[in-house]
Amino acid sequence: EMERVTCPPPDRNVLCLFDVDGTLTPPREKIDPQLDSFFQSLREKVKIGVVGGSDYSKIAEQLGEGDEVIHKFDFVFAENGTVQYKDGKLLSKQAIQNQLGEELLQELINFCLRYMGLLKLPKKRGTFIEFRNGMLNISPIGRSCTLEERIEFSEIDKKEKIREKFVAALQKEFAGKGLRFTRGGLISFDVFPEGWDKTLCLDVLEGEGLEAIYFFGNETDLGGNDYEIFEDPRTIGFQVYSPEDTARLCRELFFNAPPNES
Amino acid sequence: EMERVTCPPPDRNVLCLFDVDGTLTPPREKIDPQLDSFFQSLREKVKIGVVGGSDYSKIAEQLGEGDEVIHKFDFVFAENGTVQYKDGKLLSKQAIQNQLGEELLQELINFCLRYMGLLKLPKKRGTFIEFRNGMLNISPIGRSCTLEERIEFSEIDKKEKIREKFVAALQKEFAGKGLRFTRGGLISFDVFPEGWDKTLCLDVLEGEGLEAIYFFGNETDLGGNDYEIFEDPRTIGFQVYSPEDTARLCRELFFNAPPNES
Repeated sequence: EMERVTCPPPDRNVLCLFDVDGTLTPPREKIDPQLDSFFQSLREKVKIGVVGGSDYSKIAEQLGEGDEVIHKFDFVFAENGTVQYKDGKLLSKQAIQNQLGEELLQELINFCLRYMGLLKLPKKRGTFIEFRNGMLNISPIGRSCTLEERIEFSEIDKKEKIREKFVAALQKEFAGKGLRFTRGGLISFDVFPEGWDKTLCLDVLEGEGLEAIYFFGNETDLGGNDYEIFEDPRTIGFQVYSPEDTARLCRELFFNAPPNES
Repeated sequence: EMERVTCPPPDRNVLCLFDVDGTLTPPREKIDPQLDSFFQSLREKVKIGVVGGSDYSKIAEQLGEGDEVIHKFDFVFAENGTVQYKDGKLLSKQAIQNQLGEELLQELINFCLRYMGLLKLPKKRGTFIEFRNGMLNISPIGRSCTLEERIEFSEIDKKEKIREKFVAALQKEFAGKGLRFTRGGLISFDVFPEGWDKTLCLDVLEGEGLEAIYFFGNETDLGGNDYEIFEDPRTIGFQVYSPEDTARLCRELFFNAPPNES
C-alpha cells in the first residue's frame, strides 16, 4: 500500500481540492482502489487535497490505512477545515466553544435538547448531539441507530421534513447570532459558526502561492455543504455526481483526454 | 503477549468473577502487567470471568490487546452481562429496546432530553445520551468532554447533586415502570430494565455446573453497580478497595498465603 506514496514533483502550482463523501468515495465508505491510484497519478501534475465535514479519523479510514491519507494528499482538511494537515503534519485545530463562547453554545445545545425532547418518532436511539471541533452534529433519531433505522428515519424525514422544520426553528431562535446550518447525510444536520463552512480552508491556502484552486464537490447547491466553497471567487468550482465523474473530469482537465474517452 | 494465554486445566469448578473498573484495573485504564500475570496464574486453580458495565471494546482494551480478553478469561460479560462471551465465543446479546418497548424507551429518552435542556452548567459538550445494548448512559455535561472538563463537572456535581436530583426526578416520573438507575464514573449514570444489573450474568452461569461463584467488586454499597450481584445468594461476595487488594484477597483464598504475606 505504502509503495504508491511516492514523492511528488515540487513545482506544482495548481491545487485540486476534493470533497470526500460522494466526490472521492461513496458516502461514508472507502475509496475505490482504481480511483485511488488515479488520484495518486494526478498528484504528478497538480497538488491534491481533501476537505470533508467528517472528523479526521473517518476521513483517514475512507482514504487509506492508518494515517496514510496525510501522506497521500498534500492537504487534508477535516471538519470543514477546522482541523488542518499539510505535508503530513497537523497545522492547527480550532474549537467551536472558543468561537461561540460557552454561553451561546449552551443556549444552542439546550434549545436542541428541548426541541428533540418534544419530538415523537417511531424509534429513538442515542447520541443526539455530537460535539466536534468546528461544529455540532444534531440527529433527531440519534447517530447510534442501525443502518435499517437510519433508512427508516430518512423516509419519514422526506415526508415530514423533520430536519427542515428543526433548522427553521433554530434559524428563528438564533437569528443574528452568527450561526449556520447544513444538512449532512440522512439523519442529521450540522450547526457551525458563520464562515466555518468549507471556505475556512481557503484562508489557510492563501499563503501557499497557488496559481489556482480547483474545487470538486457533489453538494454544491444552496444548502449543501459544498455550496460556499463552490461559489467562492477563490476557487474554480466543479459539480460532480459520483467519484467516477470526479475522475473523468480530472482526466479531461489534466491529462487532455477527450470527453468521450473515459 | 499471547504466550501467557495457555490452556487451563479442565476440572475447575469454582468461578472467580471480577468487576473491571477499580477491581481489576484503575477506572477506565489498562490492567497492571504484574496483576495481569497473577490473575492468569489464578486460572490454573479456578475459572475466571469479568463482568463490567462498559461495552466490550472498552473492556477488551483494558484487559489485553485486540480480542485477547476472551481468551484470557473463561467468561467475559460486557454491559452488565447483556453481551456474553464464553470460552472465546459470543453467546448472545440483548437489546434494551426489546425489553422496554419503543414507547417507554422514547418517553424515557425524551424526559432526559427535556430535563437536560433546562439544566445550566458552566460547560456543555456532546453525547448526552449514549445508547448501549443493555442500558442508556446519561451525562448532563456530555461524554465527549475533556478530562479537565470531566473533573470540573464532577466537583460541581459533588456540591450541587446534579446527577442525584436528575435520578430522583426520573424515579418519580417512571415509578412502577421497571427501570433501575446506577451512578457510574464521574459524569454520568446508567438507566436499565429491572434485573438487568450485573446479576443478569448469573442466569447464564446457572447451567454451568459450578460449585461456587466468588464475586469481587468495589462498588458493592447500595446504589453502586456491584451491589445486586454482591448481595445475590448465588454468589459469595467480596468488597475490594483496589486491584492490588483484589489480588491480595485471591492469593489468600486460593494460594493459602497468610494475610500479611503480600
